[in-house]
Amino acid sequence: MAVRDVAVLVGSLRKGSFTRLAAKAAMGLAPPSLSPSLVEIRDLPLYDQDLDERPPGEWRVFRDRIRRADAVLFFTPEYNRSVPGVLKNAIDVGSRPYGSSVWEGKPAGVVSVSPGAMGAFGANHHLRQSLVFLNMPAMAQPEAYLGGAADLFDGDGALKSESTREFLSKYLAAFERWAALHARR
Amino acid sequence: MAVRDVAVLVGSLRKGSFTRLAAKAAMGLAPPSLSPSLVEIRDLPLYDQDLDERPPGEWRVFRDRIRRADAVLFFTPEYNRSVPGVLKNAIDVGSRPYGSSVWEGKPAGVVSVSPGAMGAFGANHHLRQSLVFLNMPAMAQPEAYLGGAADLFDGDGALKSESTREFLSKYLAAFERWAALHARR
Amino acid sequence: MAVRDVAVLVGSLRKGSFTRLAAKAAMGLAPPSLSPSLVEIRDLPLYDQDLDERPPGEWRVFRDRIRRADAVLFFTPEYNRSVPGVLKNAIDVGSRPYGSSVWEGKPAGVVSVSPGAMGAFGANHHLRQSLVFLNMPAMAQPEAYLGGAADLFDGDGALKSESTREFLSKYLAAFERWAALHARR
Amino acid sequence: MAVRDVAVLVGSLRKGSFTRLAAKAAMGLAPPSLSPSLVEIRDLPLYDQDLDERPPGEWRVFRDRIRRADAVLFFTPEYNRSVPGVLKNAIDVGSRPYGSSVWEGKPAGVVSVSPGAMGAFGANHHLRQSLVFLNMPAMAQPEAYLGGAADLFDGDGALKSESTREFLSKYLAAFERWAALHARR
Repeated sequence: MAVRDVAVLVGSLRKGSFTRLAAKAAMGLAPPSLSPSLVEIRDLPLYDQDLDERPPGEWRVFRDRIRRADAVLFFTPEYNRSVPGVLKNAIDVGSRPYGSSVWEGKPAGVVSVSPGAMGAFGANHHLRQSLVFLNMPAMAQPEAYLGGAADLFDGDGALKSESTREFLSKYLAAFERWAALHARR
Repeated sequence: MAVRDVAVLVGSLRKGSFTRLAAKAAMGLAPPSLSPSLVEIRDLPLYDQDLDERPPGEWRVFRDRIRRADAVLFFTPEYNRSVPGVLKNAIDVGSRPYGSSVWEGKPAGVVSVSPGAMGAFGANHHLRQSLVFLNMPAMAQPEAYLGGAADLFDGDGALKSESTREFLSKYLAAFERWAALHARR
Repeated sequence: MAVRDVAVLVGSLRKGSFTRLAAKAAMGLAPPSLSPSLVEIRDLPLYDQDLDERPPGEWRVFRDRIRRADAVLFFTPEYNRSVPGVLKNAIDVGSRPYGSSVWEGKPAGVVSVSPGAMGAFGANHHLRQSLVFLNMPAMAQPEAYLGGAADLFDGDGALKSESTREFLSKYLAAFERWAALHARR
Repeated sequence: MAVRDVAVLVGSLRKGSFTRLAAKAAMGLAPPSLSPSLVEIRDLPLYDQDLDERPPGEWRVFRDRIRRADAVLFFTPEYNRSVPGVLKNAIDVGSRPYGSSVWEGKPAGVVSVSPGAMGAFGANHHLRQSLVFLNMPAMAQPEAYLGGAADLFDGDGALKSESTREFLSKYLAAFERWAALHARR
């Protein structure tokens, strides 16, 4: 059985971030053929094309890490009805220099998370628009909008919502098939 | 005559950025009642809610600067069919902490710039979606999509396209009226 | 006191439509300076530019009605994560022939309604993108996403949710100011 | 060799529509394994859920036609920065009744066409947002924005632009692979 390396990006830096908790819960529910790991984006300097000739070390490490991945899962909150700058910056860094995007062709999933009811819909679909350009086949269904996120976890950050657990298991199973279908190797 | 302070944000850090050149050209074409100035966003640490209690100095300086502004003009390139992370981060920083957004109510304009033909349409409208949430009345017409940006400027970065000069003059004149209509003071 | 004529469009044709119920409830909560009336879009033939020279009677009646309006309120459900075709068709019909759009400059509000939790966010913002092009100043805040719509009304279609009533009253009061600010006459 | 039935939808009703010309040109450039045919949407009554129990004949014919298709190609102009109502209505009709969408799982491509420079970007991506909900895997690259459409065709409506011909051939070849990858049978 091929085990696929799945890079998991979280669009919030807050330590107690619900989005991060959701990502961790999902990782724990991944089927054996998926090997997910968190890729930190906190230390990536803001993208500046003038640095492309001598890129910061953090950019190189990040780009190498994504390049090794077989698939990418994005967990994003919504900031101001769109993708957080911190996550968009990571996407921008990975997409450059022109012609050397590390995202190229990698199958992707988008899970958006919000304390409110709307499940960060705005961030979810803005991110998808970028994935079109990046040539990342993005899984359509099941869509994943996790609303009411403050009520999904217990005091230790563990997922306590049974329906969310079932949903995330189903989501990961679908993503396993999606990643296999779009595997490059 | 009231002279309005217009904060001008540029979504690209590249020194020779066409977007920056377009912003500078536009600033030079502003009517006397508008006083535009560039607000740098390069040094803003990535937004992290955990820092809200003791915000980085760069955040405080930036927030104070925007708070003083009567209106905001965004000049944005398109990165991966959306707003650059660096610009979105500035927006996120200004929008927080919750309830203290410095963008509140300020009239806004969006000019998007690209070397390609499409004029960064994707960035333009993603940015507008954020402005709805931020309660920034965003001028509708004239829309401003500056395509083919590599051909608009001469070797010294001066605007050489006469039609673009006319368009930007007309744009700024309309923005003057928009800013006056939505003035808070 | 100027009384403003507000055209109210509903993006669903279903008789028992929650969106229609929400529109009716909102109309009943309008302040005295707003005179809202429903404008039916059911019978508008699909827009076809070849018909512009001799437009169908339904198009002419609709265009005349919108032309008389001082402001426009859109109540829209979400069909397939976007604006229903029936509502978009009405917008298209009103926008043509080229140069004779009846929407030009009219202040607008967008209320989106869904039985699910997400409040038809996708329709709300897709509609707003069209309003930019149509040069309709669209009120930013309060945003209006009415989710869980099946629980908002009683068996007679009357609004039973007190919090929604308060929200809609506040929304209409804000829209009164927005319409006054952007009045053409 | 499996020959795949490709339903081609055109989002403009105008007889001389550039979008229609582009669709026809593309159909002529399809590889042998794709059998594209135009599906007319002009006569579809506006979607109204109340009609679902006894659907109009045009709806049934349309739904049956799409159900038979192996893949779908959308050719869309941009009306008011979004998908034309006429095309969105066809999508809505095909998506209902709830649970019986005829679009389910069918691989899709989106080609947007405009006389202006921007290639109907707004329509292209609004349409893609619907495809996510409809569970239609939408090909990411090559993106297809055909701008300057008035100059692409000769007086007989034949494609005269060699670069567009090459692009469309490449597009169809990529779509052939995409349709094969996502084939249900």
